[in-house]
Amino acid sequence: MPEQNVPENVVLVGKKPPTSYVLAVITQFSNGRPEVVLKARGKNISKAVDVAEIVKRRFIHAIKTKNIEIGTEERVLENGTKVNVSTISITLSK
Amino acid sequence: MPEQNVPENVVLVGKKPPTSYVLAVITQFSNGRPEVVLKARGKNISKAVDVAEIVKRRFIHAIKTKNIEIGTEERVLENGTKVNVSTISITLSK
Repeated sequence: MPEQNVPENVVLVGKKPPTSYVLAVITQFSNGRPEVVLKARGKNISKAVDVAEIVKRRFIHAIKTKNIEIGTEERVLENGTKVNVSTISITLSK
Repeated sequence: MPEQNVPENVVLVGKKPPTSYVLAVITQFSNGRPEVVLKARGKNISKAVDVAEIVKRRFIHAIKTKNIEIGTEERVLENGTKVNVSTISITLSK
Protein backbone atom coordinates (compact mmCIF):
# COMPACT_ATOMS: atom_id res chain seq x y z
CA MET A 1 0.00 0.00 0.00
CA PRO A 2 2.30 2.79 -1.20
CA GLU A 3 -0.36 5.45 -0.66
CA GLN A 4 -1.26 4.56 2.89
CA ASN A 5 -0.43 8.05 4.19
CA VAL A 6 -2.49 9.81 1.52
CA PRO A 7 -6.30 9.76 1.64
CA GLU A 8 -7.57 7.93 -1.41
CA ASN A 9 -9.30 10.92 -2.94
CA VAL A 10 -6.14 13.08 -2.85
CA VAL A 11 -3.96 13.42 -5.95
CA LEU A 12 -0.46 14.79 -5.24
CA VAL A 13 0.77 16.75 -8.26
CA GLY A 14 4.52 16.29 -8.73
CA LYS A 15 7.02 15.94 -11.55
CA LYS A 16 5.02 13.80 -13.99
CA PRO A 17 3.29 15.36 -17.02
CA PRO A 18 -0.16 16.91 -16.37
CA THR A 19 -1.97 14.13 -18.25
CA SER A 20 -0.85 11.59 -15.59
CA TYR A 21 -2.68 13.56 -12.92
CA VAL A 22 -5.69 14.22 -15.16
CA LEU A 23 -6.04 10.46 -15.54
CA ALA A 24 -5.68 9.96 -11.76
CA VAL A 25 -8.47 12.48 -11.09
CA ILE A 26 -10.79 11.00 -13.70
CA THR A 27 -10.16 7.51 -12.31
CA GLN A 28 -11.13 8.70 -8.81
CA PHE A 29 -14.39 10.20 -10.07
CA SER A 30 -15.09 7.08 -12.16
CA ASN A 31 -14.68 5.00 -9.00
CA GLY A 32 -17.59 6.91 -7.51
CA ARG A 33 -15.85 9.51 -5.36
CA PRO A 34 -17.88 12.75 -5.20
CA GLU A 35 -14.80 14.88 -4.52
CA VAL A 36 -11.15 14.75 -5.54
CA VAL A 37 -8.48 16.99 -3.98
CA LEU A 38 -5.44 18.10 -6.00
CA LYS A 39 -2.46 19.07 -3.82
CA ALA A 40 0.82 20.64 -4.93
CA ARG A 41 3.79 22.59 -3.61
CA GLY A 42 6.12 25.23 -5.04
CA LYS A 43 6.58 25.21 -8.83
CA ASN A 44 4.06 22.38 -9.20
CA ILE A 45 1.23 24.71 -8.13
CA SER A 46 0.85 25.95 -11.73
CA LYS A 47 0.61 22.33 -12.90
CA ALA A 48 -2.12 21.55 -10.35
CA VAL A 49 -4.18 24.46 -11.72
CA ASP A 50 -3.59 23.16 -15.27
CA VAL A 51 -4.79 19.69 -14.22
CA ALA A 52 -7.94 21.12 -12.59
CA GLU A 53 -8.71 23.21 -15.68
CA ILE A 54 -8.14 20.31 -18.10
CA VAL A 55 -10.47 18.07 -16.07
CA LYS A 56 -13.15 20.79 -15.95
CA ARG A 57 -12.95 21.46 -19.69
CA ARG A 58 -13.32 17.76 -20.51
CA PHE A 59 -16.34 17.38 -18.23
CA ILE A 60 -18.09 20.71 -18.62
CA HIS A 61 -21.05 21.10 -16.24
CA ALA A 62 -20.21 17.77 -14.55
CA ILE A 63 -17.13 18.71 -12.50
CA LYS A 64 -16.68 22.02 -10.70
CA THR A 65 -14.12 23.71 -8.48
CA LYS A 66 -15.58 23.48 -4.99
CA ASN A 67 -12.81 25.05 -2.95
CA ILE A 68 -9.25 26.38 -3.29
CA GLU A 69 -6.88 26.93 -0.38
CA ILE A 70 -3.34 28.22 -0.37
CA GLY A 71 -0.81 27.99 2.45
CA THR A 72 2.81 27.80 3.49
CA GLU A 73 4.87 24.81 4.62
CA GLU A 74 8.19 25.15 6.39
CA ARG A 75 10.75 22.68 5.08
CA VAL A 76 14.18 22.01 6.56
CA LEU A 77 16.96 21.48 4.02
CA GLU A 78 19.82 19.02 4.54
CA ASN A 79 22.10 21.78 5.82
CA GLY A 80 19.50 22.79 8.40
CA THR A 81 18.26 25.90 6.59
CA LYS A 82 14.53 26.48 6.90
CA VAL A 83 12.68 27.50 3.75
CA ASN A 84 9.04 28.36 3.21
CA VAL A 85 7.22 26.57 0.40
CA SER A 86 3.79 27.62 -0.85
CA THR A 87 1.06 25.01 -1.16
CA ILE A 88 -2.29 24.72 -2.93
CA SER A 89 -5.25 22.44 -2.39
CA ILE A 90 -7.94 22.39 -5.09
CA THR A 91 -11.14 20.46 -4.34
CA LEU A 92 -13.04 19.32 -7.44
CA SER A 93 -16.57 18.00 -7.02
CA LYS A 94 -19.11 16.22 -9.17
CA MET B 1 -0.79 56.24 -17.57
CA PRO B 2 0.71 52.87 -18.48
CA GLU B 3 -1.81 50.97 -16.37
CA GLN B 4 -4.96 52.48 -17.83
CA ASN B 5 -6.35 49.07 -18.84
CA VAL B 6 -5.75 47.49 -15.44
CA PRO B 7 -7.91 48.41 -12.42
CA GLU B 8 -5.73 50.12 -9.84
CA ASN B 9 -6.09 47.42 -7.21
CA VAL B 10 -4.96 44.62 -9.55
CA VAL B 11 -1.34 43.43 -9.49
CA LEU B 12 -0.34 41.39 -12.57
CA VAL B 13 2.31 38.84 -11.60
CA GLY B 14 4.81 38.36 -14.42
CA LYS B 15 8.53 37.82 -14.87
CA LYS B 16 9.92 40.03 -12.09
CA PRO B 17 11.07 38.55 -8.78
CA PRO B 18 8.33 37.93 -6.17
CA THR B 19 9.51 40.82 -3.95
CA SER B 20 8.55 43.32 -6.69
CA TYR B 21 4.96 42.15 -6.51
CA VAL B 22 4.98 41.91 -2.70
CA LEU B 23 5.98 45.58 -2.65
CA ALA B 24 3.24 46.45 -5.18
CA VAL B 25 0.59 44.74 -3.01
CA ILE B 26 1.80 46.38 0.20
CA THR B 27 1.82 49.78 -1.54
CA GLN B 28 -1.81 49.28 -2.62
CA PHE B 29 -2.91 48.44 0.92
CA SER B 30 -0.86 51.35 2.31
CA ASN B 31 -2.72 53.64 -0.08
CA GLY B 32 -5.94 52.67 1.65
CA ARG B 33 -7.35 50.00 -0.66
CA PRO B 34 -9.33 47.37 1.28
CA GLU B 35 -8.69 44.68 -1.35
CA VAL B 36 -5.87 43.85 -3.75
CA VAL B 37 -6.21 41.26 -6.54
CA LEU B 38 -3.19 39.24 -7.70
CA LYS B 39 -3.57 37.88 -11.24
CA ALA B 40 -1.26 35.49 -13.08
CA ARG B 41 -1.17 33.08 -16.02
CA GLY B 42 0.65 29.82 -16.74
CA LYS B 43 3.96 29.28 -14.97
CA ASN B 44 3.55 32.54 -13.04
CA ILE B 45 0.62 31.07 -11.09
CA SER B 46 3.05 29.53 -8.55
CA LYS B 47 4.70 32.93 -8.12
CA ALA B 48 1.33 34.63 -7.48
CA VAL B 49 0.66 32.12 -4.67
CA ASP B 50 4.15 32.81 -3.27
CA VAL B 51 3.45 36.56 -3.31
CA ALA B 52 0.10 36.10 -1.53
CA GLU B 53 1.71 33.89 1.13
CA ILE B 54 4.64 36.26 1.70
CA VAL B 55 2.25 39.21 2.15
CA LYS B 56 0.08 37.22 4.58
CA ARG B 57 3.07 36.05 6.66
CA ARG B 58 4.38 39.61 6.99
CA PHE B 59 1.00 40.96 8.07
CA ILE B 60 -0.41 38.09 10.10
CA HIS B 61 -4.01 38.69 11.18
CA ALA B 62 -4.15 41.92 9.14
CA ILE B 63 -4.38 40.55 5.59
CA LYS B 64 -6.35 37.48 4.57
CA THR B 65 -7.16 35.52 1.43
CA LYS B 66 -10.72 36.51 0.57
CA ASN B 67 -11.21 34.58 -2.65
CA ILE B 68 -9.32 32.44 -5.18
CA GLU B 69 -10.53 31.73 -8.69
CA ILE B 70 -8.92 29.67 -11.42
CA GLY B 71 -9.79 29.64 -15.11
CA THR B 72 -8.63 29.12 -18.67
CA GLU B 73 -7.75 31.67 -21.34
CA GLU B 74 -7.44 30.79 -25.01
CA ARG B 75 -4.44 32.44 -26.62
CA VAL B 76 -3.61 32.47 -30.33
CA LEU B 77 0.06 32.03 -31.18
CA GLU B 78 1.74 33.80 -34.10
CA ASN B 79 1.32 30.74 -36.33
CA GLY B 80 -2.41 30.70 -35.60
CA THR B 81 -2.35 27.77 -33.18
CA LYS B 82 -4.75 28.12 -30.27
CA VAL B 83 -3.44 27.17 -26.84
CA ASN B 84 -5.17 27.12 -23.47
CA VAL B 85 -3.47 28.93 -20.61
CA SER B 86 -4.55 28.54 -16.97
CA THR B 87 -5.18 31.66 -14.91
CA ILE B 88 -5.48 32.49 -11.22
CA SER B 89 -7.00 35.44 -9.41
CA ILE B 90 -6.26 35.80 -5.68
CA THR B 91 -8.15 38.48 -3.76
CA LEU B 92 -6.41 39.64 -0.58
CA SER B 93 -8.35 41.76 1.89
CA LYS B 94 -7.54 43.82 4.97
